[in-house]
Amino acid sequence: MAELDDFFAEVTRLISAELDWLIPADGDRPQSLRDAIRWSLFGGGKHFRPALLIAAGRAFGASDDKLKKTAAAVEMLHTYSLIHDDLPSMDDDDLRRGRETCHKKFGEASAILAGDALQALSFQVIADDTKLAVETRIDLVSRLAKAAAKMVVGQQLDLEAEGRETSLDDIELIHRNKTGALIRFSAEAGAIIGGADQDEISAISKYGERIGLLFQITDDLLDITRTTEQLGKTAGKDVAADKATYPSLYGIEQTRVLASETHRDALDAIGPLGERAAKLRQIAEFIVSRNA
Amino acid sequence: MAELDDFFAEVTRLISAELDWLIPADGDRPQSLRDAIRWSLFGGGKHFRPALLIAAGRAFGASDDKLKKTAAAVEMLHTYSLIHDDLPSMDDDDLRRGRETCHKKFGEASAILAGDALQALSFQVIADDTKLAVETRIDLVSRLAKAAAKMVVGQQLDLEAEGRETSLDDIELIHRNKTGALIRFSAEAGAIIGGADQDEISAISKYGERIGLLFQITDDLLDITRTTEQLGKTAGKDVAADKATYPSLYGIEQTRVLASETHRDALDAIGPLGERAAKLRQIAEFIVSRNA
Repeated sequence: MAELDDFFAEVTRLISAELDWLIPADGDRPQSLRDAIRWSLFGGGKHFRPALLIAAGRAFGASDDKLKKTAAAVEMLHTYSLIHDDLPSMDDDDLRRGRETCHKKFGEASAILAGDALQALSFQVIADDTKLAVETRIDLVSRLAKAAAKMVVGQQLDLEAEGRETSLDDIELIHRNKTGALIRFSAEAGAIIGGADQDEISAISKYGERIGLLFQITDDLLDITRTTEQLGKTAGKDVAADKATYPSLYGIEQTRVLASETHRDALDAIGPLGERAAKLRQIAEFIVSRNA
Repeated sequence: MAELDDFFAEVTRLISAELDWLIPADGDRPQSLRDAIRWSLFGGGKHFRPALLIAAGRAFGASDDKLKKTAAAVEMLHTYSLIHDDLPSMDDDDLRRGRETCHKKFGEASAILAGDALQALSFQVIADDTKLAVETRIDLVSRLAKAAAKMVVGQQLDLEAEGRETSLDDIELIHRNKTGALIRFSAEAGAIIGGADQDEISAISKYGERIGLLFQITDDLLDITRTTEQLGKTAGKDVAADKATYPSLYGIEQTRVLASETHRDALDAIGPLGERAAKLRQIAEFIVSRNA
C-alpha cells in the first residue's frame, strides 16, 4: 500500500520535527540525559501510535496543528515504556529497532531516568498545548494517565506470567493493559481532538481496542516466523522465555484465523463512520498483513 | 513545637486516608504491584510536602477538600522518586525510613514499575479532581510535570557529580532540581488552589524555593551528625560516596550560618502575607531546627 507508506512517512516527518523541537540535541544540562532520551526517541520507530492518532483526528476534521503535540506525547510515553521494559531486571533486551537498547548504550541509571523524564514530559506537552481547549487537555491527560498506569499493570502481569501456566484470559488481560491501552488511547485522542460525539468516540474506542489486540497477535506471529535481522529486535524471545503467546496457545494457523476475525471486528466498529474512516481501514489492513 | 506536631499528625491522617482510598490494599491484579506501591507509600513518611501544600492552601482559605487530592498526588510523586533513587543502579540503598527499600523487599522490576505507576497516578489524581476548576487542574498538571522533569535532571546531575570536583553552583543546581522543584511546587500548588493572586503566588514560590534549599542544607547536616538508627536511613552516605555537600564545601559551622540565612530569606518572602502565613513560619522554624 504505497498510499499508506506515504502517510507513515508524513507522520514520521511531522512527529520527528515536533520531538526535535520539544527535546533539542543541545540545551540545558545534563547532556547525558538528553542524549539517552534522544537515542531512544529517534531510534527509527514506525510512529504507529502517532499515525493512528493523526488518522483518527483527521477523520473528524482536526488540523495537524491540534493533533501533533498529543501525537508527540504518545510517542514519548511509548518510548519510555520500551526503555523500561528493556532493562536487565525486566525483559533484559540488548537490541531494539536494530541498535543497542538505551541501558546498553548509556547505562542503567540513565536509562531509568530517561524513561522517567519522558513520562513526565508526555503529560507536560499535553497540559501546555494552547491549541486545545482546557477541557480537552484535562480529558486527554486523565485518559493518558490511565493508559500509562495500565501499561505498568500489563508489564507486571507479563513478568509474572513467564514460565507459568497461562490461560487465554491471562494473555488478553496482559495485552489489553500492556500494549492495548495506549493504542486505544491514541485512536480515542484523535477523535476527541476532532470533536467527535459520544457515539463516534465509542466507535473509535472499539476500533482502537481491536487494533491493539490485532497488533499483539501479529507481533506474536512475527516473533515466531521472523529472524532477529528482519525484526530489528531479538526474535524468538517469547519461546526462549517460555512466554505464553497466541501461537503457543492456539497454534500458528488458528492464530491467523483469530487475527482475521479481529481485523473484521475493527472494520465493523468504524463501519458507521463511512468514507471518513478510510485511512483507519488502511491501517487495520496494514497491521493484519504486516511482515515485520 | 507541639502545635506543629499536631498539624503534621493531622496531615498524615488526612493524606494516609486519601492514599488508602486511591490505592486500596485489595483490588484488581496484580497484587504484587499494589503491595510494592503501598509498602513505600505507607512507609512512615513525614508527609512534609503535603503538609506544606495544605499550610499554604489554608493560608489562602482553601478547604481541605480542595487540597487533599493534590497533596496526595505530591506524596505519590515524591514516593516514586524515592523508590527509583534507591535502586541498585542509582544510590543503591537498602534502607529507607527504617525499613527495607522497595527493591530489597519486592525485587528491582516491581520497584521500577511501582515508581512508574505512582508517577502516572499522581497526574491522574489531579486531572480527575472535580473539586477544582478545569483551569486550575491543567495549571497544576503542567507545573507538576515540570517539577517531575526537574527531579530527574537533579538525580542525573547528582549521580554524575559523585567522586568529582563539585562547585557550590553545581550543588545548588542539583538541589534546586532534585528536591527543590517539588517542594516549591507543593507551596505554590496550595496558593494556586486557594486562589492567591500573582504577587501572592510569587511570594509563596520564593518561600518554597528557600524552604527547599533549607531542607537540603539541614539534610546534609543530619547526614553527618546523626546515626543510621536516628535517621531511619543510611547515615554517612554522602561522605562514603564522596558526595559534595554544603558541609563538605563550607564546613559544619559555616553551613549552619547558611541555614540560618536561608531561614530568614524564607520568612522575608512571606512577610507581606502577615498572620495568614503563621503556619508557614512554623514549618520554616521546624526545618531549620530539625534533628532527624
